[in-house]
Amino acid sequence: MLGLMNASVFESFAIWGVLLIAFLGLGYALFLRKQVLSQDKGTQGMQDVWNAIRTGADAYLKRQLKSILPLILVLTAVLFFSVYVIPPSDEALKRFSNFAPDMVRLIVGFGRAAAFIMGAFFSLTVGQFGMRMAVEGNVRVASASRRSFAEALKIAYRTGTITGMLTDGLGLLGGTAIFIIFGIASPDVLLGFGFGGTLLALFMRVGGGIYTKAADVGADLVGKVEKNIPEDDPRNAAVIADLVGDNVGDCAGMAADIFESYEVTIVSGLILGLALVSITGELKWIVFPLLVRGIGVLSSIIGTYLVKGKKGEDKGQDAFKSINLGFYSSAAISIAAFLILAHYYMHEWRAFFSVAIGIVLAIVIDEVTKYFTHTHHAPVKEIASSSKTGSATLILRGLSIGFESSAWQFIVIALTIMAAIVIYWGQPVVFILYGVAMTGIGMLTLTGNNVAMDSFGPIADNANGIGEMAHLEKDARQIMADLDAVGNTTKAITKGVAIGSAVIAAVSLFGAFLTDVTKVQAQMGIVDSLRLLITGIRVSEPIVFVGVLIGAAIPCLFSSLMINSVARAASLIVDEVRRQFHTPGLMEGKVKPDYKKAVDICTIAAQKELVGLALIAVLSPLLIGMLLRVEALGGFLAGVIVSGQLLAVFMATAGGAWDNAKKTIEDGLYGGKGSDAHKASVVGDTVGDPLKDTSGPALNPMIKVINMVSLLAAPIIIHYRITNAGVIISMVLCVVVIFGAIIYSKHGALSFKKKGETGF
Amino acid sequence: MLGLMNASVFESFAIWGVLLIAFLGLGYALFLRKQVLSQDKGTQGMQDVWNAIRTGADAYLKRQLKSILPLILVLTAVLFFSVYVIPPSDEALKRFSNFAPDMVRLIVGFGRAAAFIMGAFFSLTVGQFGMRMAVEGNVRVASASRRSFAEALKIAYRTGTITGMLTDGLGLLGGTAIFIIFGIASPDVLLGFGFGGTLLALFMRVGGGIYTKAADVGADLVGKVEKNIPEDDPRNAAVIADLVGDNVGDCAGMAADIFESYEVTIVSGLILGLALVSITGELKWIVFPLLVRGIGVLSSIIGTYLVKGKKGEDKGQDAFKSINLGFYSSAAISIAAFLILAHYYMHEWRAFFSVAIGIVLAIVIDEVTKYFTHTHHAPVKEIASSSKTGSATLILRGLSIGFESSAWQFIVIALTIMAAIVIYWGQPVVFILYGVAMTGIGMLTLTGNNVAMDSFGPIADNANGIGEMAHLEKDARQIMADLDAVGNTTKAITKGVAIGSAVIAAVSLFGAFLTDVTKVQAQMGIVDSLRLLITGIRVSEPIVFVGVLIGAAIPCLFSSLMINSVARAASLIVDEVRRQFHTPGLMEGKVKPDYKKAVDICTIAAQKELVGLALIAVLSPLLIGMLLRVEALGGFLAGVIVSGQLLAVFMATAGGAWDNAKKTIEDGLYGGKGSDAHKASVVGDTVGDPLKDTSGPALNPMIKVINMVSLLAAPIIIHYRITNAGVIISMVLCVVVIFGAIIYSKHGALSFKKKGETGF
Repeated sequence: MLGLMNASVFESFAIWGVLLIAFLGLGYALFLRKQVLSQDKGTQGMQDVWNAIRTGADAYLKRQLKSILPLILVLTAVLFFSVYVIPPSDEALKRFSNFAPDMVRLIVGFGRAAAFIMGAFFSLTVGQFGMRMAVEGNVRVASASRRSFAEALKIAYRTGTITGMLTDGLGLLGGTAIFIIFGIASPDVLLGFGFGGTLLALFMRVGGGIYTKAADVGADLVGKVEKNIPEDDPRNAAVIADLVGDNVGDCAGMAADIFESYEVTIVSGLILGLALVSITGELKWIVFPLLVRGIGVLSSIIGTYLVKGKKGEDKGQDAFKSINLGFYSSAAISIAAFLILAHYYMHEWRAFFSVAIGIVLAIVIDEVTKYFTHTHHAPVKEIASSSKTGSATLILRGLSIGFESSAWQFIVIALTIMAAIVIYWGQPVVFILYGVAMTGIGMLTLTGNNVAMDSFGPIADNANGIGEMAHLEKDARQIMADLDAVGNTTKAITKGVAIGSAVIAAVSLFGAFLTDVTKVQAQMGIVDSLRLLITGIRVSEPIVFVGVLIGAAIPCLFSSLMINSVARAASLIVDEVRRQFHTPGLMEGKVKPDYKKAVDICTIAAQKELVGLALIAVLSPLLIGMLLRVEALGGFLAGVIVSGQLLAVFMATAGGAWDNAKKTIEDGLYGGKGSDAHKASVVGDTVGDPLKDTSGPALNPMIKVINMVSLLAAPIIIHYRITNAGVIISMVLCVVVIFGAIIYSKHGALSFKKKGETGF
Repeated sequence: MLGLMNASVFESFAIWGVLLIAFLGLGYALFLRKQVLSQDKGTQGMQDVWNAIRTGADAYLKRQLKSILPLILVLTAVLFFSVYVIPPSDEALKRFSNFAPDMVRLIVGFGRAAAFIMGAFFSLTVGQFGMRMAVEGNVRVASASRRSFAEALKIAYRTGTITGMLTDGLGLLGGTAIFIIFGIASPDVLLGFGFGGTLLALFMRVGGGIYTKAADVGADLVGKVEKNIPEDDPRNAAVIADLVGDNVGDCAGMAADIFESYEVTIVSGLILGLALVSITGELKWIVFPLLVRGIGVLSSIIGTYLVKGKKGEDKGQDAFKSINLGFYSSAAISIAAFLILAHYYMHEWRAFFSVAIGIVLAIVIDEVTKYFTHTHHAPVKEIASSSKTGSATLILRGLSIGFESSAWQFIVIALTIMAAIVIYWGQPVVFILYGVAMTGIGMLTLTGNNVAMDSFGPIADNANGIGEMAHLEKDARQIMADLDAVGNTTKAITKGVAIGSAVIAAVSLFGAFLTDVTKVQAQMGIVDSLRLLITGIRVSEPIVFVGVLIGAAIPCLFSSLMINSVARAASLIVDEVRRQFHTPGLMEGKVKPDYKKAVDICTIAAQKELVGLALIAVLSPLLIGMLLRVEALGGFLAGVIVSGQLLAVFMATAGGAWDNAKKTIEDGLYGGKGSDAHKASVVGDTVGDPLKDTSGPALNPMIKVINMVSLLAAPIIIHYRITNAGVIISMVLCVVVIFGAIIYSKHGALSFKKKGETGF
């Protein structure tokens, strides 16, 4: 069975068992959904606000689907026909040896196209369904907070868990199903699955990031700064867009991002695992990661179900304790099960150590993130203190802390790879790459818990907003404010894990790329054997160094364009909100603003801006591969990873630290709200917001999209000569489209009349 | 002769001729010095101010010498005894074949130590002598501006040219002299020369950068922001420190930086040239770069002498025209001479094209820098426009422009390397690396003109300051203000060239490193031949990737520490200036402030801060080399170059663009001085100043110091095993010292009492 020569009975059962666990995870998500939906939605006033948010969210989701669908269709066709450019691998011919070669080609083509659609659809589902559930949860949490803290906490966390279990379940389902059907031929198809997931995640991250910050910055600039009215004031036309934005960015964007890391680590884990299978003849290398993931889902189900508030006094602390209890229960169950697996199934410890290091890495990155961005530690205190000499010194201090955190994150990732080297000391390079992939698998074991903790943030935030706008009772609003504070912390923690896992996932993909290239070259007789993995990717080769430099340029360009996009979209919101403030009766609260207009502006802006950025990510590796060949493409990927990580960590840390520095000042430090120190800290926060919520996070899926495209394109690039007319035409097309995309993203993405006057 | 088998009569004469040209350049510098010193020093009031600046500058130079000398002595000993760890190369034994091997060892040891001292001393001389001359020039320019614009321009430019010709002359003298004495054994010794120059340049860049910005930010924060008194107001205790700082940073720091690039390109050019000599048996590869440099010096002498103002109306334009005339005359003479050289001596065109591309590269980088930082182009206009919505949007726009410029600079450098690949298509890799080195040689051909243009900036700036403080006539002050504006532009242009040449120089050094490693490995029988240059530096090797990641971390850490150093030193100045403002009678102008105190604070701070940073730069490559071996060290260098370039360009561009955005607003845009837009732009400028004048520029020599240390250490690292007790002890020592240095630079570099309260 499985198209695998020597699967033991246990292994066959185990793999079907993992599939079952995937469905169990999804079933658990549905169960929680029913539980949440059965809660009451509170007063009419609350439901009015909630309806506005829901309508806004729906509009965004529909519009997003509409603009993404054509591209998905085109790419599905491209992936299907790609088998007619590059024939299926030897493994595929072996797997389907009872079919004619032409038929196998068709099977693989269909498989790849279907896997792509599946990956895209799953990523979309996690984002969209998760976000819909978050919106459903908001109002119910607000209503529950009128009864008790414990109940509100439980509903908020369980709503978040729905997204978490969807992420787990769908990621595992896709990978396992492909493996069951295609067996040793899986890599041919898995790439389609991975590409679909990463591409959609890129869309949702970029679109969500632009939406949320355009609404946020736009609302604040006019509301808080110009008109001096509080946040979430119903008279501000952008306030609903702002609330929708929290869901779009933190729920949909983040969930799709983590889903994609989850999926990509399983894709690269399976590809590298299969390489080991072909070297050692042992099937365990590929069954292991699937079992680890299955265990993770089970332990997440148990752990997340344990989270519920107590009716105690110190509510914030209680909530933390409960969420942490859930997390550590899951972790303990997982590790115990991994130990059993290592002893009784693997009969060796190396794979266990790799996975365990993943869990350690998650904790270390968590601590590093906390150190640099939490109010209790030196960096945020220093930033807050520098507010006394004005915003310039505060910005400088934040930049300095951002750069420092980048340095340490590099060291942490380097140590992780070192660990894989030490664990697989003396083995061929493929083993080390497999070790890194297993670290990624381990790091994302508790994705269910992580996503739950992350989604909890915007749900609590929105509930708080509904409470504010519907003028709920003071007690209930205090409960929601407490919940919101807890949510801010859990959200920040998962952000660090998201970046760290993205980098590890990208490195695993890079490993898969190297293996893939060597495999193709071995089949063509260019290199001797997969065992040696001697690809020609030497930085000492000038053309590879050229690749590294161009690769390093891409994240810089991307960041720059993203910041501009936010600024541009925000300027449209500023204009709109200003315009609406002139509506007679609005400031007195007699006339309601037109929330929908602001929502529309954000929705359209977010969708328009992402086209150019997506084209750059998809086409640049193709161009480099065709023009400079596959070795330079390897260098390009290394450059993208290095510069991408540098910028992603820098922006996330600096942004988070400025945000929290502002909060400590708002809590009364250096004169508190309204003081000069506070004004300086608001500048820092405004600078940091688009960095930490738009540009920085968008780099995660961008890095992986580029890696996925390279993996897909590598065999074609190796086979074809640069002198081929089709290749030359493609290259010219790529250059034209890339430059068009850059110009589009820089200037033309949005046409607006008063460009020079909006201040952006 | 020359220890070279087959030098033709022309070649022998040519090399001695180059040496003669080097002396000619130095003689020209002395001639200009005499010319400048013969000018009058103006009124007593002017001389009083000038004396204060001179005393401050002298104090800095003396203190610097005192703190650097012990380190130079230690390193001289280390370099001398290094020949007893690694024996001299085969080439050295061949060159001095009439000596016993032990004697040859002694000769090479002495040579290397002497070359190190020479490199250090030359670098120091360029910085210190150039700065002294700038100070001498200041007051004379101020005095001449009371007579005519043309005369003031001529004196200012000629004073700058003194530093320019020193840079040219000393760089050429050192390289040529070593080549004449050591012939084919030059690489053994040249490394000492290069290391001495880069290390001193690092000191002068770091120290100068901290000094100048601490004084500037400190003076502005209290004077302009708190007390609302104009810049260069004599009541501000930090005003003299600020004027001294301009010299310390822009004269001494910049000149040492460019000198070091000049020197390092000749070092790597000669090393790679010798590799080609050994492959082809033709001496021309090594004679060519020396001749190119010789031609450059001659054409700079002619070109710079042409610069003198006309007695016209439009003074700023006239000045530009005259300076440009000088530059393009030099360029035209050079290119014509290169053509003759290519046709009659080289009998081929490849080397000519490489050098010509260097000149083109200088112009392209110049244009890119101008586009991103000049007031006439979109980026600065956009930043200025975003000032209307406050400092946050202005900062964001600047960050975005900084990132974008990094992206394009990467592409430009990548295209340059691509050009070398195309020019040497089909040749072994060493030829391509040689081509890159020749591009570096070409790019710095007109160093004499470049340094003159750069030094012109602070000279004009200081003259203007003297005019302000000595209350000169209105006409004279207008002339000085015009000169100052011209100086700001020429200064900005050369900054782009400095970064670009630093990257190209670093890539050349990286090439020399690869060649060197292969040579040693070939001698040990690890690889076949230098011709193939197959080093094991594959990014596909996990340990190399670890090296890349750690390498990328270093510039991040460095930037972070530098920003903190400036902030800390500036906070000391703020305290001091505030304290002095309380002196009775000072605000009324009856009592003079104690300028010396502020100068002392800056001097001590600058020297203390650089120790930790220098240790990190010197020890980190040693540690990586010993711990992870030479392949990972190669990856480390690539990581340092990529992340270093990203940050250096980002900081220089963002800083420059903010600065000019402020200037356009001060010229009347969006309400001009005092408007809200202006306040926002001042925040941007204050953030940008330490980035563009301290952290960014310091990365140039840092990248090269790390490359030089790696080159020096490579043979030792290849020979020794990691299990050697001495190596283990060294590694532990390195770790301890590096972490000590980080902690020292982060916290302890300066002890000050009210740490928590100074706002930094």
